[in-house]
Amino acid sequence: GRVDPVRLDRLAEVAVKVGLNIQPGQDLILTAPVAALPLVRRVAVHAYRAGAGLVTPILSDEQVVLARYSEARPESFDHAAGWLFSGMAAAFGEGAARMAIAGDNPMMLSGQDSEAVARANKANSHAYRPAMERITGFDINWSICAYPTAAWARLVFPDLPEPEAVARLANAVFRASRLDGPDPVAAWAEHNANLMARRRWLNGHDFQALHFRGPGTDLTVGLAEGHEWMGGASTAKNGVTCNPNIPTEEVFTTPHALRCEGYVRATKPLSYMGTLIENIEVQFSQGVIVEAKATKGEAVLQKMISSDEGARRLGEVALVPHSSPISQSGILFYNTLFDENAACHIALGQCYAKCFRGGTSMGAEEIRQRGGNSSIIHVDWMIGGPETDIDGITASGGRVPVFRGGEWA
Amino acid sequence: GRVDPVRLDRLAEVAVKVGLNIQPGQDLILTAPVAALPLVRRVAVHAYRAGAGLVTPILSDEQVVLARYSEARPESFDHAAGWLFSGMAAAFGEGAARMAIAGDNPMMLSGQDSEAVARANKANSHAYRPAMERITGFDINWSICAYPTAAWARLVFPDLPEPEAVARLANAVFRASRLDGPDPVAAWAEHNANLMARRRWLNGHDFQALHFRGPGTDLTVGLAEGHEWMGGASTAKNGVTCNPNIPTEEVFTTPHALRCEGYVRATKPLSYMGTLIENIEVQFSQGVIVEAKATKGEAVLQKMISSDEGARRLGEVALVPHSSPISQSGILFYNTLFDENAACHIALGQCYAKCFRGGTSMGAEEIRQRGGNSSIIHVDWMIGGPETDIDGITASGGRVPVFRGGEWA
Ligand SMILES: [Zn+2]
Ligand SMILES: [Zn+2]
Ligand SMILES: [Zn+2]
Ligand SMILES: [Zn+2]
Repeated sequence: GRVDPVRLDRLAEVAVKVGLNIQPGQDLILTAPVAALPLVRRVAVHAYRAGAGLVTPILSDEQVVLARYSEARPESFDHAAGWLFSGMAAAFGEGAARMAIAGDNPMMLSGQDSEAVARANKANSHAYRPAMERITGFDINWSICAYPTAAWARLVFPDLPEPEAVARLANAVFRASRLDGPDPVAAWAEHNANLMARRRWLNGHDFQALHFRGPGTDLTVGLAEGHEWMGGASTAKNGVTCNPNIPTEEVFTTPHALRCEGYVRATKPLSYMGTLIENIEVQFSQGVIVEAKATKGEAVLQKMISSDEGARRLGEVALVPHSSPISQSGILFYNTLFDENAACHIALGQCYAKCFRGGTSMGAEEIRQRGGNSSIIHVDWMIGGPETDIDGITASGGRVPVFRGGEWA
Repeated sequence: GRVDPVRLDRLAEVAVKVGLNIQPGQDLILTAPVAALPLVRRVAVHAYRAGAGLVTPILSDEQVVLARYSEARPESFDHAAGWLFSGMAAAFGEGAARMAIAGDNPMMLSGQDSEAVARANKANSHAYRPAMERITGFDINWSICAYPTAAWARLVFPDLPEPEAVARLANAVFRASRLDGPDPVAAWAEHNANLMARRRWLNGHDFQALHFRGPGTDLTVGLAEGHEWMGGASTAKNGVTCNPNIPTEEVFTTPHALRCEGYVRATKPLSYMGTLIENIEVQFSQGVIVEAKATKGEAVLQKMISSDEGARRLGEVALVPHSSPISQSGILFYNTLFDENAACHIALGQCYAKCFRGGTSMGAEEIRQRGGNSSIIHVDWMIGGPETDIDGITASGGRVPVFRGGEWA
């Protein structure tokens, strides 16, 4: 078996109706690897059915990218397609929605010259910034989902023949994207309502800190002042409520960069820039990592947390029950869209401005004063499992059960 | 057998080195149907090897286009991706080269609502104009070549199983593109030199008219005042000599819109907007068609020549020997890039400004005064064959043999 066309069509429908919530007459820019064409085509159908103006796919190809690394002159790696990204920014400025389909081989560039990769990434990030700011600033409705390409499936299931690997990954992507019931759009409405109820409950308590306990973990994560819990659907500045991530399971907020104490053991391996880091154990004091070790990939871990001053402090804390479909799959996807939804996690590095009350209108200095961390990295790693207990600590020092045995208390 | 990878790689090399003549550090925008990806990938390799800066493929997909026609709201057909085309124009303005790979199913839109198609085409043409003007004005080096897609092959060889049809079309495309010898780049240099020698000879004679004779044909085509014969390589305003068409066999110029007399019989069927027009016979008097008939598709022919006033007059005359590889293939490609190189042809409608001495700096009124036609159409149809004789008529009324028995005299 390969990719089931019925569930693929459901994914397209969910991506268009729930992910984007595309509006009548709204244009759509759809970026995807060319290997995701079967999903691109179904998204186009559902977007036009929903009244989209014009759907413009911008397709990338792994082999064209690799041709650059094997053949191009060294000085060319500072080039980027600025004309294309500026055009996208202009289109977003005129109201176009944006969908990204993930699915490239996560290890695509792991064998290439790391300096060339870094320079190309830098040039791309710089050229893409005007478009990216309209996306991260939520000027328009946007969404990311994923297609189970063969290159990705071979990495996730290296021991299976390719058709079986693709079928397995497809099943996992579809289940994680909550497509298996009779009415996926209704299932997503219910899921969003559940996430919203958790957000409201957490925001109502306005905890000072969360206390995580589990095997190898006793960690108190202070929360930023004025932090706000987010998760599930978001309403963009154009008034359209969208789901930026399909799938999503987390509710998440901003920790206080100076207030993290204790020790924590990762519950899953971390895939970082082509290396798998296993059995991470970290000690925090006054918000900063004072000791970090791993049984495999420790050198990469040390290099990562030395990226800059903020790389040793937290920028995100997120709650995901152990019963979430991605956690239950037991699969390491090598893709943050999935892996960060497998368990409660923390992220080292940059915080999200939107995880403050009124955060989108705050300056960087105000965010810092409230405890928001800043860094060039943002790396999520999983610390939750079936034995995770979490208490919320209130302003008066009281304790409220949040998680028990890996589930909402 | 499918598409031979060795000759496909040669086509990519010829397209990059001869077609584009891409320069070190020059960026490349490469438009193609996604079905032409095997050629896109080899073009990327050869472009980077030749020192290209960044190669950006912009891939279109037939099924995404068809999803629009089957699902989109009627009012959406006036939309175009202006942001993308404006970006391309900006990139050309900054020196990027442009390659287009043809290969879409020529009948892709023949079953769709013709009003929707016309509106989408109009919106596209309008949005694309700034980019198109930089291409047709030869600001930058550009080139078109073709990939034998399955959809195209099924149309050309409807009676063959698909793999055989693709293999046959691939062979025809490769042969037409002059890739069969040991050194295709050298073969193109020789071919360009031959075309240039023909151009020089014709320009040196500065004929007043060409007199075509053959079965069913006795036609005197007056040439525009100050006309210039073109064909093969061209030098763009950025100083780069490129071959805009791979393949190309024709030398061509601008006839005088008021000076065409006699009758002419088409030697091949004409594929026009999804209809095959067969056995066209036309009578000209004082430059204008006074009678036109066809054994099949005559209504479409009549509609075409009624598009506007210029649609009944000539805008191009082109010389192609019967021994040209495309003519010898005997294949109707349903694609002007190939079919117009199968035989001597004339075009009804718009003339080319570049086919005047100093034409790129002339205004529309000066072009008209010299005999250049204008129209919203430009439709090439074949009038040459193995029995075609052509005389050039000099200023003094003398006759110079140009073609005898379908070949250069
Ligand atoms: Zn997260
Ligand atoms: Zn994160
Ligand atoms: Zn021509
Ligand atoms: Zn023509």
